[in-house]
Amino acid sequence: MTERLVVIGGDAAGMSAASQARRLKGPEELEILAFERGSFTSYAACGIPYWIGGLIDERDELVARAPEVFRERQSIDVRTGHEVVAIDTDARTVVVEDLAAGERTAHGYDQLLIATGATPLRPPVPGIDADGVFGVQTLDHGQRVLDALAERQPRRAVVIGAGYIGIEMAEAMLLRGLEVHVVEMAEQPMSTLDPEIGAKVADAMRRMGMHLHLGVAVEGIETGEDGWLRAVRTAEGTLEADIAVLGTGTRPFSDLARDAGVPIGPSQGIVTDRRQRTPVEGVWAAGDCAETFHRVAQQPVSIALGTIANKQGRIAGLNLGGSYAAFPGVLGTAITKVCEVEIARTGLGEQAARDAGFAPVVATIDGTTRAHYYPDAKPITIRTVAEQGTGRLLGAQLIGEEGAAKRIDTFATALWNEMTVEELLNVDLSYAPPFSPVWDPVLIAARRADSAVRRHG
Amino acid sequence: MTERLVVIGGDAAGMSAASQARRLKGPEELEILAFERGSFTSYAACGIPYWIGGLIDERDELVARAPEVFRERQSIDVRTGHEVVAIDTDARTVVVEDLAAGERTAHGYDQLLIATGATPLRPPVPGIDADGVFGVQTLDHGQRVLDALAERQPRRAVVIGAGYIGIEMAEAMLLRGLEVHVVEMAEQPMSTLDPEIGAKVADAMRRMGMHLHLGVAVEGIETGEDGWLRAVRTAEGTLEADIAVLGTGTRPFSDLARDAGVPIGPSQGIVTDRRQRTPVEGVWAAGDCAETFHRVAQQPVSIALGTIANKQGRIAGLNLGGSYAAFPGVLGTAITKVCEVEIARTGLGEQAARDAGFAPVVATIDGTTRAHYYPDAKPITIRTVAEQGTGRLLGAQLIGEEGAAKRIDTFATALWNEMTVEELLNVDLSYAPPFSPVWDPVLIAARRADSAVRRHG
Repeated sequence: MTERLVVIGGDAAGMSAASQARRLKGPEELEILAFERGSFTSYAACGIPYWIGGLIDERDELVARAPEVFRERQSIDVRTGHEVVAIDTDARTVVVEDLAAGERTAHGYDQLLIATGATPLRPPVPGIDADGVFGVQTLDHGQRVLDALAERQPRRAVVIGAGYIGIEMAEAMLLRGLEVHVVEMAEQPMSTLDPEIGAKVADAMRRMGMHLHLGVAVEGIETGEDGWLRAVRTAEGTLEADIAVLGTGTRPFSDLARDAGVPIGPSQGIVTDRRQRTPVEGVWAAGDCAETFHRVAQQPVSIALGTIANKQGRIAGLNLGGSYAAFPGVLGTAITKVCEVEIARTGLGEQAARDAGFAPVVATIDGTTRAHYYPDAKPITIRTVAEQGTGRLLGAQLIGEEGAAKRIDTFATALWNEMTVEELLNVDLSYAPPFSPVWDPVLIAARRADSAVRRHG
Repeated sequence: MTERLVVIGGDAAGMSAASQARRLKGPEELEILAFERGSFTSYAACGIPYWIGGLIDERDELVARAPEVFRERQSIDVRTGHEVVAIDTDARTVVVEDLAAGERTAHGYDQLLIATGATPLRPPVPGIDADGVFGVQTLDHGQRVLDALAERQPRRAVVIGAGYIGIEMAEAMLLRGLEVHVVEMAEQPMSTLDPEIGAKVADAMRRMGMHLHLGVAVEGIETGEDGWLRAVRTAEGTLEADIAVLGTGTRPFSDLARDAGVPIGPSQGIVTDRRQRTPVEGVWAAGDCAETFHRVAQQPVSIALGTIANKQGRIAGLNLGGSYAAFPGVLGTAITKVCEVEIARTGLGEQAARDAGFAPVVATIDGTTRAHYYPDAKPITIRTVAEQGTGRLLGAQLIGEEGAAKRIDTFATALWNEMTVEELLNVDLSYAPPFSPVWDPVLIAARRADSAVRRHG
């Protein structure tokens, strides 16, 4: 008998799962029906700031696979412009609205995958939904920003929030020639970084001409007579603005699941087990809307990142296709750049380590990405967090220039294996003058961390 | 009572050990006497090709610490131009020749560290010691090459052997404007790479204008009336040459130890334990002259690399200073570039895996260093070797362009921890479009390897 899999959400997690399940089960065994309320499938949401900034010319370059490709090559019935508005987990049905036609229909499912993604956090202030204030989570959002840039020729942008998306969008606006103001409630950009590294990010942003307003809360949006944003009101005065972008991060878009009685965890993501099953029979979740497990903190977390969504989608698809696969959790690894400055992190920062119950020992080193005598050796600063006593690596954060940031992957792999900093300092990493000093900065950081742990006793 | 440590060899391993021991024990406890037959201490031998190629202006940029700095700041009595010519391990003395004065003196020791480095392999053919044929292991060697370039204005270089040093020197000669011929006995450059990757290295070398003579043995050196190299005779004809460089690799320079009865292992390096002690009481060895342990092959190996020499020197120094430290072995990680092409490896290639008794499953992927739609995404090819059945990662080799090669460190850290390719494919590596596709090429390679292992069963 043919089973039916319904997928809610046509981006990374949803379509990875659908494709993976299809590889294991043909259409005679498994019918796959995917609903996407936007216009696109399987696109690189993380590429949106670079598209808006003009580094990528065509929107379609961000689309890994269009709906018709899923239909024609994989017999996956993808319906864009269709929003699932309700789930009945007892009857095993979803109610779907065709957004263009305004019509609703019900569809039964045997298995349901919720992959509804994340939604931008909107500070709860008056006017935040005004025209001219943009989130940038989807291609549709991105297109709206580009249309606004073209039609209104704004000169001044305010980015509200200096998380990853915030600083990427600040760079995009700068590249588009706008005067850029960034308003951030915390005392530093990228508040999950330790202050020492956060201060360096702030310096880098200022050096490239951004105006930072740190430790400043947004209090409201003022609009002109046409209803379009005119200024952003903050605790420290009013910033005139022609366009505003939300860079305050996201929350799991788990509302639909919650309304259907699917359990939501402490991080606001949908609760799943290692196979991406929710506690409700026949209901699965993957990607930004789902909660996952932080391997170092040993706590549930929700992290909106394409790479995690893809991995979880694959795991869900393998299981939905009748195989077995388990998602082993995350480390909170992240990377970005702001112009020439590269920034990355993995594991726990100092405060997060404390919050998770560890006694952290921190150490910071300054080094170079190549042998100091080799042309274009760039600076790199690495801050490590290790556990007092055991010396177990708990996290690393780094900032530098070309060649710096991807070194975080070595720390991530060490963290994944619960290595101590003493073990890490002897790992046989690659060395040649064009690529690193004779002691790679990762090893120097581990040495310094090991010394710090020993001093602490 | 003051003990005396004698160090033979003033480069990476020897001086790292001396410095480390000094940090733990002051001059009243430990007298440190170091003999170096050359003119320099603690220099970056790996930087020599880039200095010869003109990327680094000043020889002194390669010197991390000059002899007088060791003397003045660390009370380490370094004597350059002094060659240790004999060791008496019963009497605990060394005989030292002052090379300038031609005088020999004997010096007692309580502890002796042998750090005599490596020596270039010279094909045993007539004329190989002729003027105009250069090894490039030491700064003194490098200076001789630069002097020859300046004085004789050579137009045609033959590089004998296409190992790491060979291809780096080929690039250096190209950068100096010479016509470059590379003669290699194996059918590919860098013969420790699997043929698939080796062929790509050969393509890259040809693209930049080098003339490759692969599968060709050198049979002799012809000299002119002045005794200087005139041509390199090979099995396939005679190559006229104004200068020749040995790029055939090195062997541990363990002759002095062997003559003194210190055991030499199967890889021709001095046998040591994990603390860098030789089996002879009071005698230690570290660096290129010493044998070490390959963690994947579980066999003794000798690898001449500054990063290993530095690490072993540190370990020896910690132990000589009265602390405890153990060197945990190597993975055979190596990295280099030839012009824009980056090459790296770690662990075992396919044949080496077979030789070590593993049943290898190989897989190769082609990817990009950044998201494919991001500007300057560069190609990267990764070949993995995994163990049949268990799926344990055994090695990885890669070739690509900017941003490719340092990814080998992630594989090295995974290998160090004996991860399977299935474990590796889910590791939370960093992702953002300027730094990687949503599945980093490392993860794509692990996925492909995992599929290959499953297919093999």
